[in-house]
Amino acid sequence: MPRYALKIEYDGKPFSGWQRQKDVPSVQAAIEAALAKLERRDHSIAAAGRTDAGVHGLGQVAHCDMDKTWNPFRLSEALNFHLKPAPVAVVACAQVADDWHARFSALERRYLFRLVVRRAPLVLEAGKVWQISQMLDGDAMQAGADRLLGRHDFTTFRSSICQADSPLRTLDELRVETVDRADGAQEFRFHVRARSFLHNQVRSFVGTLERVGAGAWSPDDVTTALEARDRAACGPVCPPQGLYLAHVGYPTDPFA
Amino acid sequence: MPRYALKIEYDGKPFSGWQRQKDVPSVQAAIEAALAKLERRDHSIAAAGRTDAGVHGLGQVAHCDMDKTWNPFRLSEALNFHLKPAPVAVVACAQVADDWHARFSALERRYLFRLVVRRAPLVLEAGKVWQISQMLDGDAMQAGADRLLGRHDFTTFRSSICQADSPLRTLDELRVETVDRADGAQEFRFHVRARSFLHNQVRSFVGTLERVGAGAWSPDDVTTALEARDRAACGPVCPPQGLYLAHVGYPTDPFA
Repeated sequence: MPRYALKIEYDGKPFSGWQRQKDVPSVQAAIEAALAKLERRDHSIAAAGRTDAGVHGLGQVAHCDMDKTWNPFRLSEALNFHLKPAPVAVVACAQVADDWHARFSALERRYLFRLVVRRAPLVLEAGKVWQISQMLDGDAMQAGADRLLGRHDFTTFRSSICQADSPLRTLDELRVETVDRADGAQEFRFHVRARSFLHNQVRSFVGTLERVGAGAWSPDDVTTALEARDRAACGPVCPPQGLYLAHVGYPTDPFA
Repeated sequence: MPRYALKIEYDGKPFSGWQRQKDVPSVQAAIEAALAKLERRDHSIAAAGRTDAGVHGLGQVAHCDMDKTWNPFRLSEALNFHLKPAPVAVVACAQVADDWHARFSALERRYLFRLVVRRAPLVLEAGKVWQISQMLDGDAMQAGADRLLGRHDFTTFRSSICQADSPLRTLDELRVETVDRADGAQEFRFHVRARSFLHNQVRSFVGTLERVGAGAWSPDDVTTALEARDRAACGPVCPPQGLYLAHVGYPTDPFA
């Protein structure tokens, strides 16, 4: 069966997350239903990252196996036709080797988190950013972020229901970008990169760093929390709507 | 009665436009209903620009007259509380002189129009941009835009139902910005500035310039259309969802 890699964009708001679950809408089920319109049978696709409810996809990658050989562009067009009106789009498609796997072949994941500080509701960006009203110190957040870089036991920063075998991960980048906005509000974009992540790891990082930006925590407190290897030492986990799975890296880019 | 200037942000999608109309939702009616929660009577507010259905506000300005004196920050907070869940927010509020008028005191309006060229549906920006699929030449669009600058009879570029007394206007800026996007798609942002605009003028400009970008029109054709002073000579009027009223300028900024 020919295998195809799909690069997928989605608005996480109406979904219970990436993963197919009984009786609730999921991104995976939406795409599998579109595939079933093209080849009438059950489909089961695998993705690089199983995003939670409310988390968005900018560069999610999945793969599917088809009975017949499709022109990749026509496959993406046909899927986008059948995905409407769900807020899910296939933005790139490529045939890959039979043993290529969206999850297991991935070498790197990049997440983006958008945090905006403004008093008035962000009506044009509702559901797309985490909005708070207290001003933050970006330099302090970056100083706290720097404490998390490298290879660590991230038990403090993973959900208690995380199913990964090991809490050891290597965090390659956690950059806090300050964005100029026309409305004068503060916006911080967290660029987070690792080979793989634990469950809720990015939201645990951002929620903790927000406390540092607010002055409630010091950068040293981040180190103390990390070294505690205790979920209870984590700052508050931030909400999902500012989080985007931005990019998945492979040994060679299937979409190049 | 103390008068207050309000800077207003809104998502135009659920509204039939700025202006209050019988039996359909409007931004004006939403704000007037919120005002009526604060002072129980009929309210009637005036705005700098009466945006059409689907057009967004980033920096719309209106004024309201209140019975009692309000702390401007508390007035904006109270309005935002009562505006929920409508996608309308008061982002700034200031007391102004009794003869200050949001529409008649304005010296300048700036509009932004976002046009994105991509094949796959823009699911995260749905309703916020005009999406097309044919690649455009940004330099050609700027060359066409330059033909429109200055003082002209803009009969070609105004709606047949435009109620302005004169078709003469002075276009001070029409700049075509090329934006880098993470998804590699082309995005053009049209920055348009004038003291005042005719009905559908910006959308008539952008629809015509898109034809220039696609190669169907030359910049000379824009001059010919302008000089025709004939609505039938205009290119297709583009859809509203990429248009934002970005800024209104006054002799002194009431919100500074």
